[in-house]
Amino acid sequence: MSGRLIVIGLGPGEVPYMTAQAVDALACADWFYGYGPYVDRVVDINDPRRVVSDNREEGARAREALALAARGECVAMLSGGDPGVFAMASAVCEQIERGPQAWRELSLEVVPGVSAMLAAAAACGAPLGHDFAAISLSDNLKPWALIERRLLVCAGAGLVMALYNPISKARPWQLGVALERLREVLSPGTLVIFARAAGRPDERITLSTLEEARAEQADMATLVIIGSEETRRVERPGQAPLIYTPRFAPGHDPEATGSQG
Amino acid sequence: MSGRLIVIGLGPGEVPYMTAQAVDALACADWFYGYGPYVDRVVDINDPRRVVSDNREEGARAREALALAARGECVAMLSGGDPGVFAMASAVCEQIERGPQAWRELSLEVVPGVSAMLAAAAACGAPLGHDFAAISLSDNLKPWALIERRLLVCAGAGLVMALYNPISKARPWQLGVALERLREVLSPGTLVIFARAAGRPDERITLSTLEEARAEQADMATLVIIGSEETRRVERPGQAPLIYTPRFAPGHDPEATGSQG
Repeated sequence: MSGRLIVIGLGPGEVPYMTAQAVDALACADWFYGYGPYVDRVVDINDPRRVVSDNREEGARAREALALAARGECVAMLSGGDPGVFAMASAVCEQIERGPQAWRELSLEVVPGVSAMLAAAAACGAPLGHDFAAISLSDNLKPWALIERRLLVCAGAGLVMALYNPISKARPWQLGVALERLREVLSPGTLVIFARAAGRPDERITLSTLEEARAEQADMATLVIIGSEETRRVERPGQAPLIYTPRFAPGHDPEATGSQG
Repeated sequence: MSGRLIVIGLGPGEVPYMTAQAVDALACADWFYGYGPYVDRVVDINDPRRVVSDNREEGARAREALALAARGECVAMLSGGDPGVFAMASAVCEQIERGPQAWRELSLEVVPGVSAMLAAAAACGAPLGHDFAAISLSDNLKPWALIERRLLVCAGAGLVMALYNPISKARPWQLGVALERLREVLSPGTLVIFARAAGRPDERITLSTLEEARAEQADMATLVIIGSEETRRVERPGQAPLIYTPRFAPGHDPEATGSQG
């Protein structure tokens, strides 16, 4: 069995965000599976080795790619961002567990990439500089009540939150309800970041507060970061403000107390 | 004011994990600040542009670098992994907020990188494939009670957890206590991953369970992942098992129910 499946993280959008490891992995692949816009980034649209499919067909896409790899081919499965964060690596593992024994014998490699939240955070400072959670707002694969519970406990425990899949045509109300519920536990001035197309030429960072944030400020290409009570905004002349979360909890500033050890 | 400070994420260890953007940023820098082992990766040990300092001197290092940038230089601040996750980007923002007005006028860029948890997850499958939290176990900058609370609420809400800074000579007991507390809320078979030096040639992944995990299995170079109740282990003949967390919550398997939409 010489087949290989390589699940490759392309990073948040543009080639400069790809790792050398991802570039090397692309070079050795016989086939390129993935959601069209991701495949478009790195494989010419006329290349016969492309096999693109819709965003909602992860299971079928993974099975097809595994079956092809089991015939001895080297198959690349392309993911935006990091393949392990709300992306294809988990879908592939699911299918390996359910599929024929031969799929367990394949060589599976996962090539990590810069996840959208890291690019979004870098674009505005360091909002993820302290403990944080990454939560998908999509209730396609879990009940909404569970998502609300996670949002509320993480906010209540002082974690910053990176919200993936905040909104789509098929899921228009979830982000609005999430913001409403968070207003019940976080103060109105809590910082909110809408990072659209982070890492792409059309990147747009919109800074807001929990009080003022509206769901319409996000679309499918947006990563939303909800600050904690400690997340801070630093104004800068002639430049966008910096948003960051201090490394220390209140009362634990190492330079104020000399307590670092 | 032409000074620039670029906070660069080098990724988890080896040059193949660096992005092209990070390589470009290194090329334009006049100075390289950072913790010695990170600087060693990309700047020759005899290069006079190196300014290395100890792991615990983030504040002073950031101030020095900012002061140099304010004199018009292009200064690189090097971070392992991603600079925005328990690393230098937040320390730099803290100092900009506290420092002279001139520091707010500098050009600050943060170049994201593959964070240790992403490399660790990629090395064993997709354990971070569902909602998760990233929590530092260091109680240098926050009270231990807060860390415990965060661990317990995240575990209770079904989040996988990536634990940074799990143990060090100065903090020998924290991971052991964390595992003990987690045993009170998670089942004994909950999967635990010790990912040492993820992404480096000496990478070592050790799979365990909450019941069997011992703090001595980790050191300063280890990232610990605590699975949720849903995290699964798939045995493979002649290869390490795959560890992954399904994208869906129990009862929401899209292929069992046809409920994906």
